[in-house]
Formats: sequence, C-alpha cells, structure tokens
Amino acid sequence: MNFDPALEAHVRARLDDLTKPPGSLGRLEDAVVRLALIQGTENPTVSRKGLYVFCANHGVTAEGISPFPSEVTSQMVANFHHGGAAINVLCRRENIETVIVDAGIDPATRNFAQEPAMSRERAEAALALGSCCAAEAAARFDLVGLGEMGIGNTTPAAAILSAITGADPSDTAGAGTGSDPAQVAHKASVIRRALALHALDPADGIAMLAAVGGFEIGAMAGFILHASRNRLAIMLDGFPCCAAALIARAIDPHALDTAFFGHRSAEKAHGLMLHALHAHPFLDLGMRLGEGTGAALAMGLLDAAVKLYGEMATFSQARVSIGQ
Amino acid sequence: MNFDPALEAHVRARLDDLTKPPGSLGRLEDAVVRLALIQGTENPTVSRKGLYVFCANHGVTAEGISPFPSEVTSQMVANFHHGGAAINVLCRRENIETVIVDAGIDPATRNFAQEPAMSRERAEAALALGSCCAAEAAARFDLVGLGEMGIGNTTPAAAILSAITGADPSDTAGAGTGSDPAQVAHKASVIRRALALHALDPADGIAMLAAVGGFEIGAMAGFILHASRNRLAIMLDGFPCCAAALIARAIDPHALDTAFFGHRSAEKAHGLMLHALHAHPFLDLGMRLGEGTGAALAMGLLDAAVKLYGEMATFSQARVSIGQ
Repeated sequence: MNFDPALEAHVRARLDDLTKPPGSLGRLEDAVVRLALIQGTENPTVSRKGLYVFCANHGVTAEGISPFPSEVTSQMVANFHHGGAAINVLCRRENIETVIVDAGIDPATRNFAQEPAMSRERAEAALALGSCCAAEAAARFDLVGLGEMGIGNTTPAAAILSAITGADPSDTAGAGTGSDPAQVAHKASVIRRALALHALDPADGIAMLAAVGGFEIGAMAGFILHASRNRLAIMLDGFPCCAAALIARAIDPHALDTAFFGHRSAEKAHGLMLHALHAHPFLDLGMRLGEGTGAALAMGLLDAAVKLYGEMATFSQARVSIGQ
Repeated sequence: MNFDPALEAHVRARLDDLTKPPGSLGRLEDAVVRLALIQGTENPTVSRKGLYVFCANHGVTAEGISPFPSEVTSQMVANFHHGGAAINVLCRRENIETVIVDAGIDPATRNFAQEPAMSRERAEAALALGSCCAAEAAARFDLVGLGEMGIGNTTPAAAILSAITGADPSDTAGAGTGSDPAQVAHKASVIRRALALHALDPADGIAMLAAVGGFEIGAMAGFILHASRNRLAIMLDGFPCCAAALIARAIDPHALDTAFFGHRSAEKAHGLMLHALHAHPFLDLGMRLGEGTGAALAMGLLDAAVKLYGEMATFSQARVSIGQ
C-alpha cells in the first residue's frame, strides 16, 4: 500500500496546531497519522465501527489440550447472539456493531497431532470466507475489530508461532483459558509431535494453516489480507488473532499495512508473538478472554484519538500563546 | 479505611460466575473488586463521573524553567470553558462532567528558588480548597478524575519527588511541555538550589508543599485526602497530580486508599514517582499533556470494567458448560 508523505506532513502540522504541547498526545497522535494514511484523507474517521468474531472448533481438542469442552464454542455463540458475553458489553459501550461468523464450528478441523488439520482447499476456503467478510465490512465500517471464539484455539496459534519463529513449544504453549502447568506441558508435547509430523515451511502460509491451523485463524488471515489491499483499518486482538496475522504476513509481506494491535494478552507467548510481528499494542491489562475484547477496548482509544484530532481548538482559534 | 473481606469474596465469586474463564479480564477484575470495596457495595457504579482541573501559576517560572509563558495558564482556562481543550474532548466522549477550578492563577506562588513558594497558612488553604471540592464532588459523582493546568508545574512536582525520595534533581527534572536538554539541565539546577535553600523534612507534607509546592498541587492533595476519608473513588493523572499524591501520603499514610492511577506519562521521572507510590497505572501511551487526559481515558476503562461486571451473563443464565 502506498502512503502519501505529503499527507503525513499535513496531518502532523495540524496536530501540532492543536492547543497542546507538540507530540504530547503520544501514541494517540501516531495512531491518527497512521489512520489518515490508511484511509488516504486528512480527515480520518472511525464513526462506523464493527467487530467480527470468528467461531470454530478444533479437532486437536481430542488430545485434551483445553479445560473446557468443545460444546462451549456453540454455547458461547448463543451467548453472543443474546448479548450476554464480554464482547457484547464492550461493543455496546463503544457503539461497535458485532458480527458473529460461523467459521467452522461443525465440522471442526481434524486432529493435527495425527493428520493435517484441513486440506489445502479447505485452508483456502477459510481465507476466502475471511476475505468475503472483509469486503462486506469495508462497505459498512471505517474501523473493524477482529476476534475469535474457539475452544482449543491457543494450541494451533502456538503451533503456528513455533513453526514461524522456531521457538520450542514449551515457550509457545500457555495456559489458554486456564490450564494448569501439567496441562500446559501436555499441550507443548502435543504441539511438538505435530511439528515433527508435518515438517512445515515458514514461507508457505497456506500449507502451515492447512497443517496446524484453525479454520477461524484462516478466516481472520483472509480478513487481514483483504483489509490490507483495500485500505480498511483493522484492530487485532490477542493470541489466536495474532497467529492469523503471522499467517497473513507469510502469504503477503504487506498484509499488516492497515492493522493496529489492540493489546498484549496474559497468554504466555503473546509477547513473543507481538515481537515477531514488530507490534506495539495499545493496552496491557492482563486480559486473556479473546472474543475481540482487547480490540474493542483499543478501538475506544482510537476513537478518542480521532475525536481529539477533529474537535480540539487550534492555538489561533483559542488565542493561546505558542511558547518560545 | 476498612475494607470488608466478605464483600471481596462475594464480588470475586460473582466475577467467576460470569461467562468467561476465571480471572480472564485481568486488571479490569481487580479494578471492579477494588471499586466495590471502596464504595462498600457489591454493586459498584461509576454512572456519575466528574473531572476537576486545578489551574495555577508558579513564581518559579521567573527562573525560565518552561518554554511557555505563564499567560498560557489563563488562556487554557478560557479554552476549557469554551470546550476546545483535549480534556473537554475526552470528557465529552466518556460523559464526564468537567469542573474547572482556579487554584491560584493570580496571584501565583512565589519563586521557590529564592523563598518559600507560600506560607504554611496558604498551603493549608490550598489543601482546604481541594477538600471543599472533594466534598462537593462526593455528593455529585461516583468517580472523580483529577487533573491540572499550570505552566511550570512539573518543576515543583520534580522538587517534591526529589525531597521525598532523595533522588537527584537531574533524575527528577524532565522535559515538561517540551524543554530541550539544556533547559532540563537548567531546571534541575534550579531545583537543586531550592532544595539546598529549604532543608525539607519528607515527613512534613504541609511544610514541603509550602516550600516548593504549587497551589494546585496542594488543592489536589487536599482533594485526595478528603476522598480517602469519604470513600470517594478517584482517578489520578500524570506527574503534577502524582506529586500531590506524594504530599497527601506524607500527611496521611491512608491517603491513597481510594485512588486509582490512570496512566504512566512520558515525563521522564513519572516512572520513578509511580514506583515511590507503589502504583500500577492502567495506561502507558506516551502522553504528557496533563489536564487529566490520562485520567479521563482510564475512567473509560473503569466504566467498561463495571459494565462487564454488571451486564455479562452468568454461566447458568447462558447455559454454558463451566469446564473440568
């Protein structure tokens, strides 16, 4: 994606004319500049906000890698539709429309500790689903958060992180929804077995997705890819969502051109993953809930940044002296 | 202030019954528990939110420690009243009522590099002003942010930090609104001279305030003290506001019992100050604007936390399986 340096200079000059010391809004100023460059306008907007929650089940749960049963995925989807989940509360508060997407709840992927999670065709279908959602989202929203719900999905996310960075599964497997240390060690051993079985090429994102991915991870990757090619600003969430970002970047080095990172989650290896993505998220509140909850909170900060840029008085309007 | 352990257990149990993995809202859960203990109810609320901006001038500006002239303080007060400042934008967005307080704009304090900033009586008047404001606030609001506007006020804040921690002024003087390194070095030398002049006792908060304080810093300290004694939850802001917290704690060790910390600012020594206060703020966005802007953003996060607690479905309501 091409960014316009003249536009950046224009937006920075306008920020410096607002009644505050230059640069004193810190990362909020950088976020406004980036949003302006993404949207290609000196008047960026986030008035219309959406958040897509991609929901899926995972065959690898047969290995006992999650303390919650797979049925919880569809139970939580019902909860989303009734408005009782955390993401519903946060989106209501920020006037963000939630879109719940069935991204492979039934059938689940296969157990990737024993065979590929899906065929290459099915991995491509996951990417295509996400791409379709992003095309719809681009017509409806100025800023879109991504989230997921899928019992077991920190296991494929950790497998992808290990495959791409070479980190040992003992460093990428974490507590997820609340596994104890013995369960986490078991999860690492399952991932280690899967990596030995599949012999992954970090440069082939689609093959990686097919071998150890989740269908919702593929859908989020497809969403990210479409967004980057169509100037749609997106806000990413936690560990499985950032695993999708790794897949997307493996497919296209420019995949993250329009992506903001919402938060650092409490999942053990999310810091390593963010480092691999060169990402600096807005928030670090020890959250590990998924659903897009970190993204939704950070979308509020981005909304605040845009309002500051659009509504603050300039030095000349307010007749404030501009210093030395 | 007495906190009720049975109430804490009750609130934590209710949090664990919400449709999410236990503890997965991280610091937002701790914040809800703390707010419930402060307000003494299992149904904490932040529906009515206010933010007080204490505005003052500082005689020490005669030493050339700020790149902005003192006239900016009253110009910015006019900007606050017209709704054009950053704090106005953020408070509108979060439905927070702003209250602008003249806390010593004219006359300013005296130049504390040459004489005490104010008499002990005037320091007590500053505390009393803040206490009065807090009494009014406690009747009107559930949660109150504190902020300030005062050209030059990072200099008294740094002096207070040095006096209390023993840190050298070269480690506590920072860029403020945008001083260059030579100006920061000059600011440190002014503070060093003042500390030599006044021979401060870190245990005597009022004497410290009189010697090197600002009137708005004293007013914020008085607000904090009253809030802690009347179960009023407050959200603190950046460097000058946290200097007020240091003064308040020197006066009463329980002064921070009802205080939340909004953000870590980009001012160099704010990290040291937060460490001295054993504080873990919600946000770290590189902001250094004052006015209560960091507090206002963090009040939004606390509002989100309370809504999650109050509006999320329980496992039984949503018929979600609770795992192993």
